Amino acid sequence: MNSRPILGLTMGDPAGIGPELCLRALREPAVLRRCVPVLFGDAGVVKRIAKINGKSRTGTKDGNGGCRTLSLAEWEKLGAVTGPLIVDCAALDAKKIKPGKISAACGRAGFVFIEQAIRSALAKKIDGVVTAPIHKEALRLSGVNHPGQTEIFTALTGARRSCMMLRSGVLTVSMVTTHIGYSEVPKKLSVRRVQDVIELTAEAMGWMLRRPPRLAICGLNPHAGEHGLFGQNEEEWFVEPAVVQARKSGIAIVGPLVPDAAFTPGQRKKFDAIVTLYHDQGHIPFKMLAFDTGVNLTLGLPIVRTSVDHGTAFDIAWQGLADPQSLFAAVGVAAELAAGRKSKGGGL
Amino acid sequence: MNSRPILGLTMGDPAGIGPELCLRALREPAVLRRCVPVLFGDAGVVKRIAKINGKSRTGTKDGNGGCRTLSLAEWEKLGAVTGPLIVDCAALDAKKIKPGKISAACGRAGFVFIEQAIRSALAKKIDGVVTAPIHKEALRLSGVNHPGQTEIFTALTGARRSCMMLRSGVLTVSMVTTHIGYSEVPKKLSVRRVQDVIELTAEAMGWMLRRPPRLAICGLNPHAGEHGLFGQNEEEWFVEPAVVQARKSGIAIVGPLVPDAAFTPGQRKKFDAIVTLYHDQGHIPFKMLAFDTGVNLTLGLPIVRTSVDHGTAFDIAWQGLADPQSLFAAVGVAAELAAGRKSKGGGL
Repeated sequence: MNSRPILGLTMGDPAGIGPELCLRALREPAVLRRCVPVLFGDAGVVKRIAKINGKSRTGTKDGNGGCRTLSLAEWEKLGAVTGPLIVDCAALDAKKIKPGKISAACGRAGFVFIEQAIRSALAKKIDGVVTAPIHKEALRLSGVNHPGQTEIFTALTGARRSCMMLRSGVLTVSMVTTHIGYSEVPKKLSVRRVQDVIELTAEAMGWMLRRPPRLAICGLNPHAGEHGLFGQNEEEWFVEPAVVQARKSGIAIVGPLVPDAAFTPGQRKKFDAIVTLYHDQGHIPFKMLAFDTGVNLTLGLPIVRTSVDHGTAFDIAWQGLADPQSLFAAVGVAAELAAGRKSKGGGL
Repeated sequence: MNSRPILGLTMGDPAGIGPELCLRALREPAVLRRCVPVLFGDAGVVKRIAKINGKSRTGTKDGNGGCRTLSLAEWEKLGAVTGPLIVDCAALDAKKIKPGKISAACGRAGFVFIEQAIRSALAKKIDGVVTAPIHKEALRLSGVNHPGQTEIFTALTGARRSCMMLRSGVLTVSMVTTHIGYSEVPKKLSVRRVQDVIELTAEAMGWMLRRPPRLAICGLNPHAGEHGLFGQNEEEWFVEPAVVQARKSGIAIVGPLVPDAAFTPGQRKKFDAIVTLYHDQGHIPFKMLAFDTGVNLTLGLPIVRTSVDHGTAFDIAWQGLADPQSLFAAVGVAAELAAGRKSKGGGL
């Protein structure tokens, strides 16, 4: 292994902002300091984007950053990775792409890039995967039967349990439930699930911080139920027993906290990460503090996976206007996680 | 009417931090510039607190600020209010109070102060009521059958509809539902209720800003449901029709917004107030931005009512340590609301 981790970047939906962001990353000093990037994408798209980026308002001439481009067969045979590479998955006809348009062909290509990156990560040719955004509707049109990338990673890696985490310099939150309706949340709570998410959060934070993390978890109801005054005692049934179990296994965690008092500046200083019970309990405070710079992590996989915290932005695709900060941050977190995981940081 | 509004201050639970905060307010220049305060409390408590405050770490000598103290009978007969007053409701034996202890006597007294202030406001002797905190458990012990002050105000003023608003310099939110369990929220949503809260929010903001306000409303589900992908279409059933109706009546409102994108700095600049559907959807962002300086308003009453946004803080009661900023802010908002309401600001 290189002293820097080798990270696979997936290009995302070719009609979105993923390709231009990935090409920016291949030549970005902050990225190259943290990892050796390997882009899983399409050589034809790289060629078209390089031209467009050259003319863009940002004035950058991204090209392919002087990277070698390999076919999938060449990549499979390659021994040591010594510098940035582009792996051409040849998954679509680049000339036919209409930037900013939903299509089954682009949905399918986005899936193939992910599939190849996961294969390489499971084979330990790369140390982790950083994903650019795909388009959920395009994915569906292509006949792929997964609602999003988190689900693709969970299925293709055979993970027994997984959860979403959002990480930034000012707040880190993980989630017991994510993309389900508001009213389904209480039904999905169980001591086992809450405990799983606490354990996954503790493990990942330990890898990143290289010390045992300080965690908190929120209650579900207003005022965390105020001793049964509001709600169905979900705090007593599902959260408290999971906290007790987690503490027994050596995890430093407090809670259930009163949700509206958990994200104040004072509390944020006390905890390295806060476990939340539903999508907006974590996403509302996170997006307030880190709208453009957040990183989305999938915990519990046998491989490292991070992602940008934004969508395909079809309205500005292929114009060189997209902000690469979230992708650069996702690379940084993946590098941190890959290195910590190898060294079994945090004593976990 | 005085050019400054006459505002009733209720002392709150006598064993909490309410009495010392109210005495601070009676001599605070920022308060006296905005209103003529009339304290509904207990003369015996004033005497005990004045002594304690004189010795406190804050070094203030609060006394009664040189205010005249009137009995309830004298207050009823009084003509014009020309300066700060204390109305002695004589509702308990002040010598028996144990600071920081829950008691039925203090719970009862806290209720009597509110009752008298509401009577005076309904009789138009005062222009609004600002409440110090009561203790819910003490209130219950005293046999009063209301869970909190908002409910007391709604019942004693006979209000047909009311809602909670939290206001600060950086964010204002109102709530369609408040102190109910997480899982009860979807059942409590209706087009009528959502429309009521939009209308109450528009009316109050118009009074305070003296112009038509710019409002937004959140969806219930992650991503506001993403067109039925998550949830039971609560956005389509309950929020969208209420928004359509509100617009027809001339209210400028957008939404349902994606909840996690509604409270970012950019969005907060666009809207004067954001209507939220449940307690923590509004309280989490609000408390992150204005933990100690928030003001709690009850909208929809025939009288003006604002409140501090904190509790009785029994742990520091009667020590002169309590921070009066939230009470001062509550006085400011009540003054703004009382003046705007008289002038029918915002053209509403």
